[in-house]
Amino acid sequence: MDSIGTLLSLTTFGESHGPAMGGVLTGAPSGVPVSLERLQAFVDRRRASGAHATARHEADRVEILSGIYEGVTLGTPVGFLVRNADVRSADYQLWADAYRPGHADYTYEAKFGLRDWRGGGRASARETVARVVAGGIAVQILERLGVTVSSEVSQIGTATDADSMRRQLDQARAEGDSFGGIITCTIAGVKAGVGEPTFGKLQSRLAAAMFTIPAVKGFDYGMGFAGAAARGSEVIDRFLPDFTTAANHSGGIQGGISNGADIYFRVAFKPVATMMRPIDTVDRHGREITVEPRGRHDVCVVPRAAVVVESMAALTILDAILLNRSSRL
Amino acid sequence: MDSIGTLLSLTTFGESHGPAMGGVLTGAPSGVPVSLERLQAFVDRRRASGAHATARHEADRVEILSGIYEGVTLGTPVGFLVRNADVRSADYQLWADAYRPGHADYTYEAKFGLRDWRGGGRASARETVARVVAGGIAVQILERLGVTVSSEVSQIGTATDADSMRRQLDQARAEGDSFGGIITCTIAGVKAGVGEPTFGKLQSRLAAAMFTIPAVKGFDYGMGFAGAAARGSEVIDRFLPDFTTAANHSGGIQGGISNGADIYFRVAFKPVATMMRPIDTVDRHGREITVEPRGRHDVCVVPRAAVVVESMAALTILDAILLNRSSRL
Amino acid sequence: MDSIGTLLSLTTFGESHGPAMGGVLTGAPSGVPVSLERLQAFVDRRRASGAHATARHEADRVEILSGIYEGVTLGTPVGFLVRNADVRSADYQLWADAYRPGHADYTYEAKFGLRDWRGGGRASARETVARVVAGGIAVQILERLGVTVSSEVSQIGTATDADSMRRQLDQARAEGDSFGGIITCTIAGVKAGVGEPTFGKLQSRLAAAMFTIPAVKGFDYGMGFAGAAARGSEVIDRFLPDFTTAANHSGGIQGGISNGADIYFRVAFKPVATMMRPIDTVDRHGREITVEPRGRHDVCVVPRAAVVVESMAALTILDAILLNRSSRL
Amino acid sequence: MDSIGTLLSLTTFGESHGPAMGGVLTGAPSGVPVSLERLQAFVDRRRASGAHATARHEADRVEILSGIYEGVTLGTPVGFLVRNADVRSADYQLWADAYRPGHADYTYEAKFGLRDWRGGGRASARETVARVVAGGIAVQILERLGVTVSSEVSQIGTATDADSMRRQLDQARAEGDSFGGIITCTIAGVKAGVGEPTFGKLQSRLAAAMFTIPAVKGFDYGMGFAGAAARGSEVIDRFLPDFTTAANHSGGIQGGISNGADIYFRVAFKPVATMMRPIDTVDRHGREITVEPRGRHDVCVVPRAAVVVESMAALTILDAILLNRSSRL
Repeated sequence: MDSIGTLLSLTTFGESHGPAMGGVLTGAPSGVPVSLERLQAFVDRRRASGAHATARHEADRVEILSGIYEGVTLGTPVGFLVRNADVRSADYQLWADAYRPGHADYTYEAKFGLRDWRGGGRASARETVARVVAGGIAVQILERLGVTVSSEVSQIGTATDADSMRRQLDQARAEGDSFGGIITCTIAGVKAGVGEPTFGKLQSRLAAAMFTIPAVKGFDYGMGFAGAAARGSEVIDRFLPDFTTAANHSGGIQGGISNGADIYFRVAFKPVATMMRPIDTVDRHGREITVEPRGRHDVCVVPRAAVVVESMAALTILDAILLNRSSRL
Repeated sequence: MDSIGTLLSLTTFGESHGPAMGGVLTGAPSGVPVSLERLQAFVDRRRASGAHATARHEADRVEILSGIYEGVTLGTPVGFLVRNADVRSADYQLWADAYRPGHADYTYEAKFGLRDWRGGGRASARETVARVVAGGIAVQILERLGVTVSSEVSQIGTATDADSMRRQLDQARAEGDSFGGIITCTIAGVKAGVGEPTFGKLQSRLAAAMFTIPAVKGFDYGMGFAGAAARGSEVIDRFLPDFTTAANHSGGIQGGISNGADIYFRVAFKPVATMMRPIDTVDRHGREITVEPRGRHDVCVVPRAAVVVESMAALTILDAILLNRSSRL
Repeated sequence: MDSIGTLLSLTTFGESHGPAMGGVLTGAPSGVPVSLERLQAFVDRRRASGAHATARHEADRVEILSGIYEGVTLGTPVGFLVRNADVRSADYQLWADAYRPGHADYTYEAKFGLRDWRGGGRASARETVARVVAGGIAVQILERLGVTVSSEVSQIGTATDADSMRRQLDQARAEGDSFGGIITCTIAGVKAGVGEPTFGKLQSRLAAAMFTIPAVKGFDYGMGFAGAAARGSEVIDRFLPDFTTAANHSGGIQGGISNGADIYFRVAFKPVATMMRPIDTVDRHGREITVEPRGRHDVCVVPRAAVVVESMAALTILDAILLNRSSRL
Repeated sequence: MDSIGTLLSLTTFGESHGPAMGGVLTGAPSGVPVSLERLQAFVDRRRASGAHATARHEADRVEILSGIYEGVTLGTPVGFLVRNADVRSADYQLWADAYRPGHADYTYEAKFGLRDWRGGGRASARETVARVVAGGIAVQILERLGVTVSSEVSQIGTATDADSMRRQLDQARAEGDSFGGIITCTIAGVKAGVGEPTFGKLQSRLAAAMFTIPAVKGFDYGMGFAGAAARGSEVIDRFLPDFTTAANHSGGIQGGISNGADIYFRVAFKPVATMMRPIDTVDRHGREITVEPRGRHDVCVVPRAAVVVESMAALTILDAILLNRSSRL
């Protein structure tokens, strides 16, 4: 339940204001050099910076506890930690008995009967730091296989170019509001034949991975939602004599299996639910209350989420590549 | 790899023109009456009918082989079969050495080194009949828990009302073309607290399930892709004193866990790749060929796919409900 | 829950007196010729024959429904059936409301609230026929990898040579009693390096597989239970310059991973619980009853169980070999 | 691969001489008080002490990083660490290029192409400390369900009473030799109906769990290996009117499902492979060498292993109890 992946599998742990976030990455093949400097730089991409990001500043220094020896993967589980340092749980005290709208306070309590209310506990987006550590390792392994994962922010609010995006963010911040957006991710270099038929389709694994990221509300790949409105004759990917296709409406996947073209997909994020405005909500007893917001939050998580999307994509595709090794005798 | 679900798990088998499609549903709780008549009626909803559907007509009579005794589930695996009767493999002979564009012929061969070319083999949408058998059982179990799954075709091509949809289908058929569309599915009656945090989020399981359905290119839930462009202040779901919410932008899920509101999501299908037009493609040796289409195909699979979407939704939500039984001591 | 194996996975279904036993074998690599004649001969080894075996005679003809095309594995799920023909459920009517001692009647009902009482239902050893079908396929795949699985009956009751074994069986039959025994199984040809550290150790997977076989009460490998009483200096396997070992006390496994020597283990079976004697037991209401035995049973299942042991061993080792393909980059 | 359990699942990590051993326990139900003092005391039972144990002394202080808040389980993953402090890797330098007989040095290298040679790396029995942390939590949860797990050392070498055991250990130590032994474990208080049919049988899960413990060579339950030689008429467990049984040859399990009686089983350990004697072996190049032993080792691991056996039993039975919650609607 708290793991993802079949052969390459990640389990994470940690509450936002507990001692540490961390995880265990199992099934990473042995013999791969992993640069801890590059890994740290990858994790740093997720850190808050700039005017639109939360004021919480974590050093997010990665501690590798096992599975890498003398800079090379051993094939054994990679355990790792990132300490939580800059916590101000007092900011959240007011939520100990009340439910933030648009957050998981109420649903966690409905499920578990209790929750760690400090900083959103387990439901905090801080959980994603552990994914980025694992993803950063996967990215370095994938490189050796000629596979690269990249992403770009293709929409913030209604804006689709850099200037408008910045304006939207400035505006949201000035008004104490928030925006969502869309990230487009591309996986290049995957050979044809990766992915499993039926219930292990590549798009199914990718979608599953993306929807584990907090705030994600939509995923499509290739022609995606636009394909619903297209005619078959317009969007069919004609083969060329080298078995590549003239276009790539399919998004690099046919029947759940890669065809050698770039795999690309979009991930839609909702606006952040915590805004710098008074919040009308209810407490545990159903009493209506109005709360002045405290805590530190992003105006828009999308820029920071790009590396999370890449991480989940890297873990998913590496797992699929490993699985594919047993497809033929 | 060829199974889906954790406690309630479905494994399917069958090639389109082999002797039978079938599956095993494990983990269905014991003691639930299952009406085989109602199950057959549910499966019949998937059958081809009308002018826009394939001319292949299968009786699709469900044979239950185990797990149900005297009309009641035993708690043991439910094995079942649907025979393939109306097969015309000869229609497909021309594809034994060539790759249909927009299909999985090439990718299966890239993966496995060979394929059953008759009727699309394992990659045929006929595989979904086994899901509908299992889904039909899940639906009857869910009823006892007060949960219902329903769906509607909300878009075909560019059309969103019934008359326009019919016109688009007529037009596609006349022109030997095809259309995709969008199905909206709603799960009602799920209590708050169902779903797992982090990697077992309800939306992740639902998305994974939907993307295992052939031709699905997009999935979103709640405000979905539209949410990317919205302001946080517009889409936050304010709590009422009874812990329901004034609106349901969240789609019934917060932090991966149900909040008691309706769960709803959209599934986008691409147009059918096989059209009644000459097809330019390549054979196994990379030689360009043009093929006159044969075989029997739908102009648009969306109407028939609705019950497949409901089936996968039913299996997913029942699994999540069972999983949730161990969340508290 | 009702599946075994990670990459190569078997799910079975069927009640003893239902229409059929069957299963789905997923993850078998593509491109392997499978002789259906040899498969049938393998399954025939499990059939009852001789004076000490049950009088129930099933043809046990294997029906392959998918996954093998033109005699070669496709890489897709192999669905299969064996019909139940020679059922005499009336013999079991008397057990509909009573619990046979030494059987699972009571425990199934404690778990599920009801049971299929005909012929032991799902708990019948007839379930193992599905394993032998899958195992017979695994055996043919393993051959291509140079791996062979063999077994011998090394003990029946207290007898360890063929004449004494026969005498014990004759005696048990004459007295309406039953005996258990021990099967020794050897897997040869596995290269060094197969198996997973920690929780996927080869011995753990083999033991798990063996204890899923009805009536198995013990498993040990290499020096086994005898090793508990040995001195380290006596049982250490010294290396030779070619990395083989002088002796094989370790049973071909070190740290959960194969070392290239033969893997061998013992499986202990209890005596059959149904004997041809009046049985004192209780009914569902706790009333003491004495029952004259009916139904058809083996005096000793061990000879028929050998091929079941081999089947589970073959499935387990093939799975481990496939898993091992992802151990290194 | 590096996890065990279905709903309650443990993943461990750590090399013997790396910075720390640790793990993540997922699926522990929420709302259970966990005494960290009692947990530490449980882990302390595994620590080396006395004349026959290794001279390596680790404080083994448990650090809980998540999943327990204000002394109560949250239902979220419990991440934890135990630091490795008293490491003397230099003692192992001589094994960097040579293979210890009876250890996993060679097999790890055959599998992964490299290994962490310090202190046995991942294959060290030190790995079990993480299991005992998780097991100690499981034990506290089980108590609330009225289930207790206990064990006793029933054999060391050939000795079966306390005085003889001590003599055997003294002798082994004096001679630089080692002994194995047998642990008998009992699980009491499990209600009838726990365990899954077919591939999830309770005995299969228990055996699988025990064979993941280093040095385990045998497992049997109930009448075990002795049952192979018994007559059915002697060992059948007759029912009493309250559905308990007069005897308990079955070991508390019928058909893979608990019957309410005590579950008991034996676990056989081989003698420690490292002895205080010169060792003849080969290096990586196949050259014969003789090595004077260094490092710190137990003469017999069995006394320290008891709490490891209990831990694995506790994790397994709690998982089975949670799984059983979904058996009926």
